[in-house]
Amino acid sequence: MIRVVILGAGNIAQHLYTVFTKSEAIQVVQVYNRSQKALQSFTNVATTTRLKELRDADVYIIAVADDAIASVANKLPFTNRLVVHTSGSASMHVLHKKNRRGVFYPLQTFTKGKEVDFSQIPLCLEAREKTDFKVLQQLADAIGSPSYKISSEQRRALHVSAVFVNNFSNHLYRIAHEICEANNVPFQILHPLIQETAHKITTLTPYMAQTGPAKRGDQKTIDDHLEKLDKDIHKEIYTLLTQSIAKTYGREKL
Amino acid sequence: MIRVVILGAGNIAQHLYTVFTKSEAIQVVQVYNRSQKALQSFTNVATTTRLKELRDADVYIIAVADDAIASVANKLPFTNRLVVHTSGSASMHVLHKKNRRGVFYPLQTFTKGKEVDFSQIPLCLEAREKTDFKVLQQLADAIGSPSYKISSEQRRALHVSAVFVNNFSNHLYRIAHEICEANNVPFQILHPLIQETAHKITTLTPYMAQTGPAKRGDQKTIDDHLEKLDKDIHKEIYTLLTQSIAKTYGREKL
Repeated sequence: MIRVVILGAGNIAQHLYTVFTKSEAIQVVQVYNRSQKALQSFTNVATTTRLKELRDADVYIIAVADDAIASVANKLPFTNRLVVHTSGSASMHVLHKKNRRGVFYPLQTFTKGKEVDFSQIPLCLEAREKTDFKVLQQLADAIGSPSYKISSEQRRALHVSAVFVNNFSNHLYRIAHEICEANNVPFQILHPLIQETAHKITTLTPYMAQTGPAKRGDQKTIDDHLEKLDKDIHKEIYTLLTQSIAKTYGREKL
Repeated sequence: MIRVVILGAGNIAQHLYTVFTKSEAIQVVQVYNRSQKALQSFTNVATTTRLKELRDADVYIIAVADDAIASVANKLPFTNRLVVHTSGSASMHVLHKKNRRGVFYPLQTFTKGKEVDFSQIPLCLEAREKTDFKVLQQLADAIGSPSYKISSEQRRALHVSAVFVNNFSNHLYRIAHEICEANNVPFQILHPLIQETAHKITTLTPYMAQTGPAKRGDQKTIDDHLEKLDKDIHKEIYTLLTQSIAKTYGREKL
């Protein structure tokens, strides 16, 4: 049985709490949060707003905003225990060295209120001590998540990659939605294409999966598209991504 | 029974042939292609390389490269029959007016050899005559595809939208793949995030689904990401898309 204390009451804290309580190999001993209000959604578990009241546990998981991690870690009233954070961008070293440090980063986009399937969420694990790494691995196993040993530097690379595939792709969907609305076309017509595009790269590399006018070097279609776009920022994005694709496939002239 | 002649032997022609032959409401009378070689994969159907030998049918579907559509349509040795093309970007009017014109555009990305599920492929239909439109609708129904009445101008908007959600998203996946490789991280860690990002917009608008540093106005993370990126073109794309997201959410200063 792995005894866990969760520090924080936001999105990730809530999702971790929910999945941990389902596992027989994990006991959530306590949930801490600075303010009482956010703790109200944590039922059937001891809660506290005081770090001094933190109970004994095998792992302390700090799931708070990136810029609050160091401050929480500094104030912990104990030493030499396993303390991890859940951030994609913060280094393991923002945690105070008075404790044994690690990272337990679930690489996924969390939506408030929407239950998530942890068997589909890769966990990026890091720890200074081998035995601590094993504990984190057992924690990941207990909730059915695939886990990977990822250094802070690798995690940084993953985090920026995640911005490309998640934040930026979603923004491209948003632009398409705008174009559809401006032309009285239901955006849902594009849903299957969006799904298939995302699905395709599970069997082909993105390099192999690429199609379209930029890859073909089809200047006529590119000109037609640019003419069709109303907003300058859409034209700029179209042009830059087209150039980048063209370059990738050796079509320097586009 | 709708009698169909397919003109062309490429990707779309093959996928249409495969799905049409599965429907009892459709009879593929003949497949035409300029060269004999590409016709070899069409078995159990009459084929020809001569337009003069084209048989009688209810619909002639021209599924050839965009810049060849007009030339094939011009050379058809008959008049006043229903002739459609399958292009997302070509206007209906590239078809010669000696015949009744229409468009039968499947909005999806086709991969050679990979069977496609037409129940997941929206068909964008256009026709000058109401009765012709109905025939195209019946054709879509017979293969289980949702269909939409889409004008040439709307189809143009959809086509450029498709470039954003398909070609450009895929290129963002490619960039993430590059970053992962440069940092010895397996790209597959990002697969679930890519799927979830695509899935999310079926229940939330992309506007609502947006997350990330650009939306939050988190300049520290943005600077950290830009520092982590090695290639200038990646930095440029990161900067432009970040600006566009920031603008969308009223954060003009980023």
